[in-house]
Amino acid sequence: MRLWDTASTSDSHHEFVDHFTVGDDYQWDNQLLEADVRASKAHALMLLNVGVITDKENKMLQKSLDEILLLHKKGEFLITRNHEDCHTAIEEYLTMKCGDTGKKIHTGRSRNDQVLVAMRIIMKEKMDDFHDQIQELSNSFSQQSKKWSSQIMPGYTHMQKAMPTTVGIWLQAFADGLSDQIPPLKSVRTLIDQNPLGSASGFGIRNFKNNRPLTTRELHFQKTQENPIYCGLSRGLFEYQCIEALTPSILILSRFIADILFFTADGKKYFTLPDFLTTGSSIMPQKKNVDPAEIFRGKVSQFLAIKHEIEIIYNGLPSGYNRDISLIKQSYFRASTLAEELMQMAQIFAENVTPNAEALQESMTEDLFVTEKIYNLVKIGVPFREAYQQVKEEFMTGDL
Amino acid sequence: MRLWDTASTSDSHHEFVDHFTVGDDYQWDNQLLEADVRASKAHALMLLNVGVITDKENKMLQKSLDEILLLHKKGEFLITRNHEDCHTAIEEYLTMKCGDTGKKIHTGRSRNDQVLVAMRIIMKEKMDDFHDQIQELSNSFSQQSKKWSSQIMPGYTHMQKAMPTTVGIWLQAFADGLSDQIPPLKSVRTLIDQNPLGSASGFGIRNFKNNRPLTTRELHFQKTQENPIYCGLSRGLFEYQCIEALTPSILILSRFIADILFFTADGKKYFTLPDFLTTGSSIMPQKKNVDPAEIFRGKVSQFLAIKHEIEIIYNGLPSGYNRDISLIKQSYFRASTLAEELMQMAQIFAENVTPNAEALQESMTEDLFVTEKIYNLVKIGVPFREAYQQVKEEFMTGDL
Amino acid sequence: MRLWDTASTSDSHHEFVDHFTVGDDYQWDNQLLEADVRASKAHALMLLNVGVITDKENKMLQKSLDEILLLHKKGEFLITRNHEDCHTAIEEYLTMKCGDTGKKIHTGRSRNDQVLVAMRIIMKEKMDDFHDQIQELSNSFSQQSKKWSSQIMPGYTHMQKAMPTTVGIWLQAFADGLSDQIPPLKSVRTLIDQNPLGSASGFGIRNFKNNRPLTTRELHFQKTQENPIYCGLSRGLFEYQCIEALTPSILILSRFIADILFFTADGKKYFTLPDFLTTGSSIMPQKKNVDPAEIFRGKVSQFLAIKHEIEIIYNGLPSGYNRDISLIKQSYFRASTLAEELMQMAQIFAENVTPNAEALQESMTEDLFVTEKIYNLVKIGVPFREAYQQVKEEFMTGDL
Amino acid sequence: MRLWDTASTSDSHHEFVDHFTVGDDYQWDNQLLEADVRASKAHALMLLNVGVITDKENKMLQKSLDEILLLHKKGEFLITRNHEDCHTAIEEYLTMKCGDTGKKIHTGRSRNDQVLVAMRIIMKEKMDDFHDQIQELSNSFSQQSKKWSSQIMPGYTHMQKAMPTTVGIWLQAFADGLSDQIPPLKSVRTLIDQNPLGSASGFGIRNFKNNRPLTTRELHFQKTQENPIYCGLSRGLFEYQCIEALTPSILILSRFIADILFFTADGKKYFTLPDFLTTGSSIMPQKKNVDPAEIFRGKVSQFLAIKHEIEIIYNGLPSGYNRDISLIKQSYFRASTLAEELMQMAQIFAENVTPNAEALQESMTEDLFVTEKIYNLVKIGVPFREAYQQVKEEFMTGDL
Repeated sequence: MRLWDTASTSDSHHEFVDHFTVGDDYQWDNQLLEADVRASKAHALMLLNVGVITDKENKMLQKSLDEILLLHKKGEFLITRNHEDCHTAIEEYLTMKCGDTGKKIHTGRSRNDQVLVAMRIIMKEKMDDFHDQIQELSNSFSQQSKKWSSQIMPGYTHMQKAMPTTVGIWLQAFADGLSDQIPPLKSVRTLIDQNPLGSASGFGIRNFKNNRPLTTRELHFQKTQENPIYCGLSRGLFEYQCIEALTPSILILSRFIADILFFTADGKKYFTLPDFLTTGSSIMPQKKNVDPAEIFRGKVSQFLAIKHEIEIIYNGLPSGYNRDISLIKQSYFRASTLAEELMQMAQIFAENVTPNAEALQESMTEDLFVTEKIYNLVKIGVPFREAYQQVKEEFMTGDL
Repeated sequence: MRLWDTASTSDSHHEFVDHFTVGDDYQWDNQLLEADVRASKAHALMLLNVGVITDKENKMLQKSLDEILLLHKKGEFLITRNHEDCHTAIEEYLTMKCGDTGKKIHTGRSRNDQVLVAMRIIMKEKMDDFHDQIQELSNSFSQQSKKWSSQIMPGYTHMQKAMPTTVGIWLQAFADGLSDQIPPLKSVRTLIDQNPLGSASGFGIRNFKNNRPLTTRELHFQKTQENPIYCGLSRGLFEYQCIEALTPSILILSRFIADILFFTADGKKYFTLPDFLTTGSSIMPQKKNVDPAEIFRGKVSQFLAIKHEIEIIYNGLPSGYNRDISLIKQSYFRASTLAEELMQMAQIFAENVTPNAEALQESMTEDLFVTEKIYNLVKIGVPFREAYQQVKEEFMTGDL
Repeated sequence: MRLWDTASTSDSHHEFVDHFTVGDDYQWDNQLLEADVRASKAHALMLLNVGVITDKENKMLQKSLDEILLLHKKGEFLITRNHEDCHTAIEEYLTMKCGDTGKKIHTGRSRNDQVLVAMRIIMKEKMDDFHDQIQELSNSFSQQSKKWSSQIMPGYTHMQKAMPTTVGIWLQAFADGLSDQIPPLKSVRTLIDQNPLGSASGFGIRNFKNNRPLTTRELHFQKTQENPIYCGLSRGLFEYQCIEALTPSILILSRFIADILFFTADGKKYFTLPDFLTTGSSIMPQKKNVDPAEIFRGKVSQFLAIKHEIEIIYNGLPSGYNRDISLIKQSYFRASTLAEELMQMAQIFAENVTPNAEALQESMTEDLFVTEKIYNLVKIGVPFREAYQQVKEEFMTGDL
Repeated sequence: MRLWDTASTSDSHHEFVDHFTVGDDYQWDNQLLEADVRASKAHALMLLNVGVITDKENKMLQKSLDEILLLHKKGEFLITRNHEDCHTAIEEYLTMKCGDTGKKIHTGRSRNDQVLVAMRIIMKEKMDDFHDQIQELSNSFSQQSKKWSSQIMPGYTHMQKAMPTTVGIWLQAFADGLSDQIPPLKSVRTLIDQNPLGSASGFGIRNFKNNRPLTTRELHFQKTQENPIYCGLSRGLFEYQCIEALTPSILILSRFIADILFFTADGKKYFTLPDFLTTGSSIMPQKKNVDPAEIFRGKVSQFLAIKHEIEIIYNGLPSGYNRDISLIKQSYFRASTLAEELMQMAQIFAENVTPNAEALQESMTEDLFVTEKIYNLVKIGVPFREAYQQVKEEFMTGDL
């Protein structure tokens, strides 16, 4: 039974309504459990500090919370639909193990509080992971760039040959683009590094003296997020910003993958890919399609759609907590996982794409050097626009 | 081993690349299996008809396909990641059971073909279901409207009281809006009722004589989708249109649910809801929040985001098959399930919302009748604009 | 001065607030004026019919309304920001010309009513135009398809050569796709063909006897939209559905244009385009880029974004009128204009794309015919899957 | 005549194609002109430095460029559709005034280059403006918060009364939320502070020795954006990031405005608004609707839609320049203007919203204090969960 039923009468439950409202939310909560336990341990210390529980009670709670973590790691602490979420599951376990002491764990906090602090802990870690992943990705591009720095290739605009460039310059563009995204990522990482625990339902509790700096220290937050209404406002918003901070990197990679597809399209052999990056056909045995790149393209669209989903769920709600906000939890996890996979896939492409020197050399047709001819004229004093017209006429009449 | 590996060398597989490309796509295929078997049975009949298989071979295939269906219904025909999809799983089973005859089942079709026809069969059924669901929903609103036809209530614009109306008129607006959506839904249902089986990889097969009208008849399609490239183009597009056809209904319901939230917000008691439509708080025992309505609001945003995801995956791809299109299968199922749940939830609200006559009567304050005062003047010949100004001045000075 | 100021005190206006709220909305109203005048003429007839105005008064109003139309056509009836919208401008003009009779024109209707009916009239016409435009576009593709029915070309999947097809089949795919969109378009055209005039502010007027069937007849609507709250709900929703009905056609065209770009990319010469469909470069005189196709691609994204804008403005508002709905008017006009332009541009491409027989012939490399080799084996009784493996091995070892 | 026609034959132009491709792009260029002139002046200095022009030529160019600026400020330097863009207009003017010297101005750069650097200059300025605007907005909220720090008000969750709070805490939440957005904004401001001028068409020019550090210094960029392909990649991307950096602030404000609407809905008088923030009705003289807040809500949706438009235009293009990217210019200006207006409007609300002490006092009903009763029990040692159940039962039975 849930702890906060509005009524105990028989018409208080409706199976479909429960399914609709809770959905598979409790499953996502397996991802929150560890962080929730860590926050609960800090919260218990605070309750000890302000005199709600005794030293002995705190020890009981700490021990039981550690047990939950152990059980969870062994896959034996399961959150079921009856629990609705991991927060209830934890309180039930503590009450079972510690009796009345367990019933004290929720003092001074709310479920909303628990989700807020657990998500915050998780997001901080994920942002650190993404920091590293983007850095590595940038490094891979950079290493490949150095390796192929002298390999000439045609530069394209409008999917038409434009001017000569090198594989090194091409790959370094992505390296630079990605490494530039790290400071904005860090600034969001700093933004979210504030402790919301103690905001209760978004208004604090006037006649309960919380020691919020204590949990801030215990949980290694840079500061306490003082205003309780702002704590509530930041639920969903900070999730959005963490996902958002990944978007420019993913957009940059979308253009790298578009290049991969273009440079291997229609039998073009500028680059060779290992077999594990191509797929065959069920009826055309000759086919070697770059399916992972196409799936990449589709998954970027999925990523953008989920990001947008967060925006429109969040947008325009009154400032206090509303239940729709809870749906952002799964949007965050889905978008975050997609981003991880997209970056890992891009890294595999970056590491495995091998220039085909012969094909690239053959592709360096005369039209790529037309602009250089203009500049040869510029060098001898012909005004650019005149040189342009002159070379153009030669090109059009075939004299070039 | 997959049937269409591009190479058998050891570097042909990469676990993460496989995970990235196939993902959990094979799980969605459990939903496709039944339709795929039905299409395979029709396809076998066609192969018999054009002389690829004998009568005896056809019987073997039909029997084995029926077995697959039985096993599937008992949950014993599982599609694993190794199979990649249900189409391979079926061919493997047939080959195991029927030997060389099993190896003939794929004659004249492609996997793309199979997905196309299976999805088409499923979508036709789902469109019929949605037709009924929207009709029932409209009926529920209409019945409730009749029941409360004489119950007065304040009409609001800009979330401010505007003019008097009745609960009956309010509910009938949704009934009318929903029933009006049925003809456009039907027109999409008719659009998709064309058989794509036999388009092969999107270009037919020049030296294989398919009898496409035969499978069209067997599978109860209204017509054959002749042009094979159009068959390919319609993959993803028809999925989009099926989801799109539900959108106006869902948008209409989003406004009904907004009303529910508004008419019960802040302790307003215009309508009472059964307990199973409200949720309590983990720290505020007095709370009765209409969480299902808030989740409804959030899920509409999820629905819109997935619909948009389909658009941007589909948009701008070259006309032949590209692998990203395969991601639309899961978008379709997710959006379709969301739509079903949203409509079911709306129906529960429609059936359970009960006007509170006393509260509604109290709410009928004088300001709601100001416009009627103008029309009393209009009746005795005062030009409307003058009557408006006159009544306005009375209202502002408190004489009214 | 606006007719419906809430107060005459000096602090009733704030220049920026006015700018923010009204914006350039009044400019869009130049597009509404003609329809508003037509609706006002029908409304005046109704007022005569129910005895609000005399025959003489009606004649005065009809005459003045015709004058407005004439002035408007000469560009001399301007709607300024002071008017806020065309509806006020019309009433002011009538009051100036007809005195007290002008002050009667607003009897029994509201501004909301006027926008609803004027937009409905406009949307009906635009839907008829789009019907014709899509039909013509389909016809153009069909004619071109017939013209090039025997011209062979490579069919692509995954941007790799797959199997042989013809220019005729390729173009007919778009013709079929487009003509299939006409019935759903018509069903939306039928949906919106209902008269909202007389819904007043969304609740009718209890002590005013409107003759709504009269205006329905006069304005050639198929029926009266009876429920006044539904009239209000349909504002924005019907606009959305009109735009939505164009989306599948535009998505189909997005794939045609992607093909154009792909078949002319990187100097490929499968098709030639007239010079007016290409653009040069400011520094590379050799360039011929298909800029209109790239702009097409970008404008499809604009179209999808505006469509989505309508959804998220509309979604989740309480059922009565809210001012945000007024923003959908400009979204509708912008999306509608974009759609017209996209279709016109696609038609120019369809009519002007010319196959290059020589280049297409050269492109018909052996790999395109591998599947046919399988079917030659199938014909002599080899099971498909075996034939596939056999041909594949030959292909891989270069024996093919 | 445009300078870069691909052909001079009569079929090189098509009025509609020109309209479709160029659109009203040239009008947006009036906003770019000043920055383009500044960049051109720096570019001329560079040309002098590398010996392309003489000191005398440079002086002529500087003088003529200053003239353009003066003419522009007087509204006399107009960019017409024939010019296509401001870049051509400038070169034409320089050629007219300086003869052959004018024809040299385009040496070492491309139009793409010019747009890149001009937009970069503009975006840096706008980011500074937004920095100030968000800071001011935060300050306004903070000042109002201090002013009303002791004014009690009900805190809501789920649009139901939850717990007591103060107007001060409520307003400070927005102040905190906004000021927290300044560091991420600054990090994007730093990101874009790199000079792209000299990237030419995205590949540099191998036989032209540009002095890029010189223009970097002259134009006060923090550094040179070295990689020319990255310069190209950042077009559209940096625009996106500038708009994106405003989104969290706008989402925060969307919740403030939702509160405004909720706290004034249905005649609730928690806050009073000046008359200029309300609008009347054309037929209901008693109405005072908060239209600017509703338009605010709609414009946030417009803002989100345009932001998303940029993403989907940019996403998945090959890395070189493609014409669709040019559409992002107008998306940027439209989104940026919307953001400015939204923030200004929010500031007006923040400054003008006045708590109604009497109404707020009356609203402090007993249910708001139920949680405090629990904590009174907690204080005397009752475990929280028991205290919760006990108070809940009292509340349900009416003993409380």
